[in-house]
Amino acid sequence: MLLALGTGHVFEILLTLFVMMAAAKVMAEVFERLRQPAVVGEILAGVLIGPSVLAWIRPSELTNTLAEIGIIFLLFAVGLETKPRDILHVGKTAAIVAVLGVVTPFVAGYFVMRAWGGNNVEALFIGAALVATSVGITARVLSSLGLLSLATSRIILGAAVIDDILGLLILAVVSSLAAGQIDYLEIAITAALAVGFTVFVSLVGPPVLNRMTPRVENLRINESLFAFALLLCLGLSVAASFIGVAAIIGAFLAGMALAEATEGNEAMHRQMNGVTEFLVPFFLVNIGMQVQLNVFRDPSTILLTVVITLLAVVTKLVGGGAGAIHLGWRRAAQVGVGMVPRGEVGIVVAQIGLGLAVISDSLFAVVLFMAVATTLIAPPFLKLLFAADSTKANE
Amino acid sequence: MLLALGTGHVFEILLTLFVMMAAAKVMAEVFERLRQPAVVGEILAGVLIGPSVLAWIRPSELTNTLAEIGIIFLLFAVGLETKPRDILHVGKTAAIVAVLGVVTPFVAGYFVMRAWGGNNVEALFIGAALVATSVGITARVLSSLGLLSLATSRIILGAAVIDDILGLLILAVVSSLAAGQIDYLEIAITAALAVGFTVFVSLVGPPVLNRMTPRVENLRINESLFAFALLLCLGLSVAASFIGVAAIIGAFLAGMALAEATEGNEAMHRQMNGVTEFLVPFFLVNIGMQVQLNVFRDPSTILLTVVITLLAVVTKLVGGGAGAIHLGWRRAAQVGVGMVPRGEVGIVVAQIGLGLAVISDSLFAVVLFMAVATTLIAPPFLKLLFAADSTKANE
Repeated sequence: MLLALGTGHVFEILLTLFVMMAAAKVMAEVFERLRQPAVVGEILAGVLIGPSVLAWIRPSELTNTLAEIGIIFLLFAVGLETKPRDILHVGKTAAIVAVLGVVTPFVAGYFVMRAWGGNNVEALFIGAALVATSVGITARVLSSLGLLSLATSRIILGAAVIDDILGLLILAVVSSLAAGQIDYLEIAITAALAVGFTVFVSLVGPPVLNRMTPRVENLRINESLFAFALLLCLGLSVAASFIGVAAIIGAFLAGMALAEATEGNEAMHRQMNGVTEFLVPFFLVNIGMQVQLNVFRDPSTILLTVVITLLAVVTKLVGGGAGAIHLGWRRAAQVGVGMVPRGEVGIVVAQIGLGLAVISDSLFAVVLFMAVATTLIAPPFLKLLFAADSTKANE
Repeated sequence: MLLALGTGHVFEILLTLFVMMAAAKVMAEVFERLRQPAVVGEILAGVLIGPSVLAWIRPSELTNTLAEIGIIFLLFAVGLETKPRDILHVGKTAAIVAVLGVVTPFVAGYFVMRAWGGNNVEALFIGAALVATSVGITARVLSSLGLLSLATSRIILGAAVIDDILGLLILAVVSSLAAGQIDYLEIAITAALAVGFTVFVSLVGPPVLNRMTPRVENLRINESLFAFALLLCLGLSVAASFIGVAAIIGAFLAGMALAEATEGNEAMHRQMNGVTEFLVPFFLVNIGMQVQLNVFRDPSTILLTVVITLLAVVTKLVGGGAGAIHLGWRRAAQVGVGMVPRGEVGIVVAQIGLGLAVISDSLFAVVLFMAVATTLIAPPFLKLLFAADSTKANE
């Protein structure tokens, strides 16, 4: 009876956090010892404790919320290590990578789904789900290898931002089509807002923040700069989300705008690292928990899953890689593989399709599997392809 | 329409976080400039944005969850700065402070409520609600003054742990009475478990963790010691909660057990500080948001509120202070005031009473007000009473 005395709710929350964190860290250690990326271990930890296998923890309001806050701070942390001019230097290549990396999977996904017998709207949704890159996974791998400052890493990050905006517009068009009509004006406004927001924060943010930071440090409250960074991250994520861009893009831009002003501030970076390391495992484990292995009961669905997953890998690899081919085959492969993970973005697109009742439960499960599988496949190849750079960077 | 495209949920979460954090930090800065404790500003920020005044944010699953995780990490961080032997040194004084600080408000609360015309069970609940100290608030104030290592601070922390166990047992007895019968065996088991857990973790924890820590640091995963600390904090909170002790006691003991092993590890303390600074504002703001100012419509309720709140302050001050009177008046006053805040613990007791339908909505509002008011009153006096120590410590 005593257990029910108000402690029940707290107990459940803390137990969920403990099991997710413990599973993530044990699997990360196992994968590190196998010389595989820790992220793969943490996502597989989610598959393991999730509904498909052990069913210890189910995706819930709590796990989704922690995951969403986690990816926000992950992108903010990545932004903090990225200066706007580094992205501008590779801007042209990033733009080409993004456009080719969006068009190729969308078109291929559409036609393959039509050939499979899907109707027009279904095919459009599958195409849209194949578009968006989950930059968090790649950023996490590159960051743990200490390679975020490489030109190739900048290209991937820049392309991911553009990719996200293009993906947003495709999703808007496809959703309008599913709802019956396209509102061109609204889509044009969204496009203008998204581009305007990104350009504005990238250009105006750094000089403004460089001037503000010393004043913030003079405030009376403890850890004022850290508090300011948290507010900037949350504030720009809210703003981005409000005008229709993904919140993670706002978080990334916030970090990037603050990068110069906080360069060399070891204490503040350590504090932010604590928040990120605490929250990111929930994001990774939560992705793994989404998998529904029961999709593998029906042979025709198995085949479709294999086809869609292969298509997801090949089209991003070819599309993204083609945009960077002038840098040589190895760099092109690095960029291509870096764009492969679909992670939570693919899952969100599939959820929207399910919500609009234009894709079936089994097609939803196919997209889920594709999203998680691409997220698991990419990191080992990334580690391999970047091995030479990693050795050089650590020498 | 685009806003509804899966971004709605994320938007709401991030907006809530942003508004709570921004309000907390602005009010903290204002209060620091008025030379008042920042915690008071952060709690008042909650009153301000909460349902009573602006109604921008209401207490929700999200805010409660963040608050609960926040108080866990706050107590863990305080534990990390507290070595078991420091508490043992002041053990006897702490025990006397705790017992007198529990008996005095309970007895006084019971009789005053009876005199007011309350029935037996109502009076018992009011007594129980006056018992439990919210150590988080005092710890936060002492920590921000850099005074956690003072003997008086140790006495308050030690007494708060014992206080919490006694409060738990009183609550168990009172709840059984409300439910119709007392299960003496179950209460004896709870008492034994609570005491056993506390003693076991305090004695066995430090030597075991001192030996384990170097091995943890040799693990392959990044930031292994930090991950281990997170898991220890969550794990012992879950264990404490499971056997019926408050989760925060588990978190505090976890921190204390790890204190020696991580002493001087600046990087890990910074990371943990980041997590704490990120989460604690949600705990403080959430307390403020609980206030229901509509209690002040009925004159007789206003009078009861004033009486109960005064009683809450005076009984802890006298009871807690009496236990430390041999240290002189100033130390006794420091200890007494340090035990005054009831914060979230008083709120939980009131919620249980409401859940068991033994206290009315208006009596619930009275207890809520008392809990928040004691939490707001104590910090300025603490700051004043500790001013001399603070000057000495910073010289």
